[in-house]
Amino acid sequence: MFVEDKEAIAVPLITLLSDFGLKDQYVAEMKASISTICPQARIIDISHLIEKFNIRMGAFVLASATRHFPKGTIHIAVVDPGVGTKRRPLLVQTKHAFYIGPDNGLLMLAAQRDGIRRVHALTNRKFMLPNVALTFHGRDLFAPAAAHLANGTSIANFGPAICDYEVPKFATPIYETDEVVGEVLHIDDFGNVITNIAREDLKKIEARPTVLISVKLKNEDWKVGFCTTYGEVSEKTALALIGSHDFLEIAVNQGNASKKFKAKVGDTLAVSLQG
Amino acid sequence: MFVEDKEAIAVPLITLLSDFGLKDQYVAEMKASISTICPQARIIDISHLIEKFNIRMGAFVLASATRHFPKGTIHIAVVDPGVGTKRRPLLVQTKHAFYIGPDNGLLMLAAQRDGIRRVHALTNRKFMLPNVALTFHGRDLFAPAAAHLANGTSIANFGPAICDYEVPKFATPIYETDEVVGEVLHIDDFGNVITNIAREDLKKIEARPTVLISVKLKNEDWKVGFCTTYGEVSEKTALALIGSHDFLEIAVNQGNASKKFKAKVGDTLAVSLQG
Amino acid sequence: MFVEDKEAIAVPLITLLSDFGLKDQYVAEMKASISTICPQARIIDISHLIEKFNIRMGAFVLASATRHFPKGTIHIAVVDPGVGTKRRPLLVQTKHAFYIGPDNGLLMLAAQRDGIRRVHALTNRKFMLPNVALTFHGRDLFAPAAAHLANGTSIANFGPAICDYEVPKFATPIYETDEVVGEVLHIDDFGNVITNIAREDLKKIEARPTVLISVKLKNEDWKVGFCTTYGEVSEKTALALIGSHDFLEIAVNQGNASKKFKAKVGDTLAVSLQG
Repeated sequence: MFVEDKEAIAVPLITLLSDFGLKDQYVAEMKASISTICPQARIIDISHLIEKFNIRMGAFVLASATRHFPKGTIHIAVVDPGVGTKRRPLLVQTKHAFYIGPDNGLLMLAAQRDGIRRVHALTNRKFMLPNVALTFHGRDLFAPAAAHLANGTSIANFGPAICDYEVPKFATPIYETDEVVGEVLHIDDFGNVITNIAREDLKKIEARPTVLISVKLKNEDWKVGFCTTYGEVSEKTALALIGSHDFLEIAVNQGNASKKFKAKVGDTLAVSLQG
Repeated sequence: MFVEDKEAIAVPLITLLSDFGLKDQYVAEMKASISTICPQARIIDISHLIEKFNIRMGAFVLASATRHFPKGTIHIAVVDPGVGTKRRPLLVQTKHAFYIGPDNGLLMLAAQRDGIRRVHALTNRKFMLPNVALTFHGRDLFAPAAAHLANGTSIANFGPAICDYEVPKFATPIYETDEVVGEVLHIDDFGNVITNIAREDLKKIEARPTVLISVKLKNEDWKVGFCTTYGEVSEKTALALIGSHDFLEIAVNQGNASKKFKAKVGDTLAVSLQG
Repeated sequence: MFVEDKEAIAVPLITLLSDFGLKDQYVAEMKASISTICPQARIIDISHLIEKFNIRMGAFVLASATRHFPKGTIHIAVVDPGVGTKRRPLLVQTKHAFYIGPDNGLLMLAAQRDGIRRVHALTNRKFMLPNVALTFHGRDLFAPAAAHLANGTSIANFGPAICDYEVPKFATPIYETDEVVGEVLHIDDFGNVITNIAREDLKKIEARPTVLISVKLKNEDWKVGFCTTYGEVSEKTALALIGSHDFLEIAVNQGNASKKFKAKVGDTLAVSLQG
């Protein structure tokens, strides 16, 4: 497969992420589409419990997971409030992987991290199921595209290369000399505030461990220690660290950071090295 | 495999549906049985979150999903309040697939849609685990049968062909010239009322899109538009459509149809083309 | 694989058990690690809904499931409140399987049932991911070890054999001539009280079916029938039986045993044949 790109992987691997939940048959139907077209593909679920229509959470979970998969893995992601409207279905090739899903920003956090090579719109009906349901592109359009790609179909065959795909604000932190401006992507079960600022964006700061950093959030400016584990500060004290997802996270040791900082998903955040 | 039927599929594929939930080890133990007998079989979960003992919901989810799988797929379904009683274990071959599960109607909605070829009782202890637990036929009886079938065992070896298997009322809508009488199979999370009346049963009506149809439910007679998407009617207005599951569904655009119609699972429903 | 032990299995099979839940990407990242190192390994989930940090429940679910898997299966289990501390990562070879996880007792109920052959500490960094996160040994240490083992790496290469691994009290019921002293491992959704006393421990009693046994729990001494199914006693009557998990279970027919006996996880229990 992927002969044109010299990225053959012996066992084609396809992952799935969605907000479909686990009760209904929707996820199984996507797997049925894949199995019909590419029976030898291996399928791994990333998560199907993304909050309904929460594109930020889907983008965060996707970008956290995909870096760990083998080069050439094909990732299908479906959090798609616009299904059935004119939003385009996309196939993105990065330096590490392939992403298939809606043109609503969901794929872009992961794709930009990897490094985008090219983006195509999925327009060729030959690689869709014969009757595409308006409400179920996951089964009828995205899963078949992934399976045909796993079978070795060239990317250019799926549809035209495009440049005007949607890049949501949350996919692009703004880097300045002393400051990175990003936003809150996700609040986890512990109340940890996870941002879209990646480990790579903080290389300079990381070079000086346990330094204080300044976090501007909601017009307040907090100084917190930049740590490697929660336990480096005393109980109920705030800290910043790079989580196992490789994003900057604001936390409170044995406490709830989202409450302390009144932070919610979508809030803007500026981080700088405290001079 | 299936040499006798010339339906070899290169990679044997087995699916699982149950009301076992995801917390306990029960599903994994079924997969262990399969892996022991047929290590090369691929296994896909349809759902394990069917409501406990809700045979209608299990039948609906099964019948929605299985049509999308490749020809020759083996489906195990276990929603089985009668496990350990005299209800028989079945193997059903249809024109499209194989179904293994209890003789309580669970398999019949899917099997009748596919077209039933033959039904056998599973009686041959050679294809069960040595000690069959009275309470766990999924692991000790259904999963081993599926794995042996995937290994190429002839259907006739599993036990005698039977004709007196249970066909529940919900598996057989009654078709008359102007009317189809069915019942409510499932209320989904949005309150949509899903019936056992399949797309095929409404071919004539479908031929006239956006026609009014008459729905008799609870002794009331409602006229609703027959649409292709929810948005074709104004907000809070009722409609009928064929869902992505290919069953007739009564819905309210951005509202709750089960509340509006006071419909519940098992209610009888008559649908006719509005003259 | 496992050439040194003549236990080659054609398709390497790896199972996963954890308390990670199903919403986040953690389970997928473990599978990504496995797929990167051993793409042909098959992966089966046992459960990821073990209660957070509940080692007893994890040990019970693991020990119930693993006996059913093929000989040579590799089981990864992660319920690991001590991750990042000095607790050691282990690789256990039993007469039936391989277990990989933390040295906190989680693996030992299953391993002792199988019969332990040898236990090694995982110390060789060559078989871990390059940057082991302090908080995520599942992805960076346990999953890679399992994948390398599946690839045929000799056990001795992973690290030194050890004897001082932790054996928790709940993994070792005490057998005396007339009595077995164990503890409550798990209360299931029906209120059934599941103990760590295995079928094998009660061989003598089993030889005399439907005998009365004496259960000492909370300083009270109860006489209950030793049955094969719940229905052998009248409604609301207590009984003991060996569940499909092959552990002794105290139940109440159509009632809640944990309420009746005020039993909770960790309680001590003595069982004897009623003379």
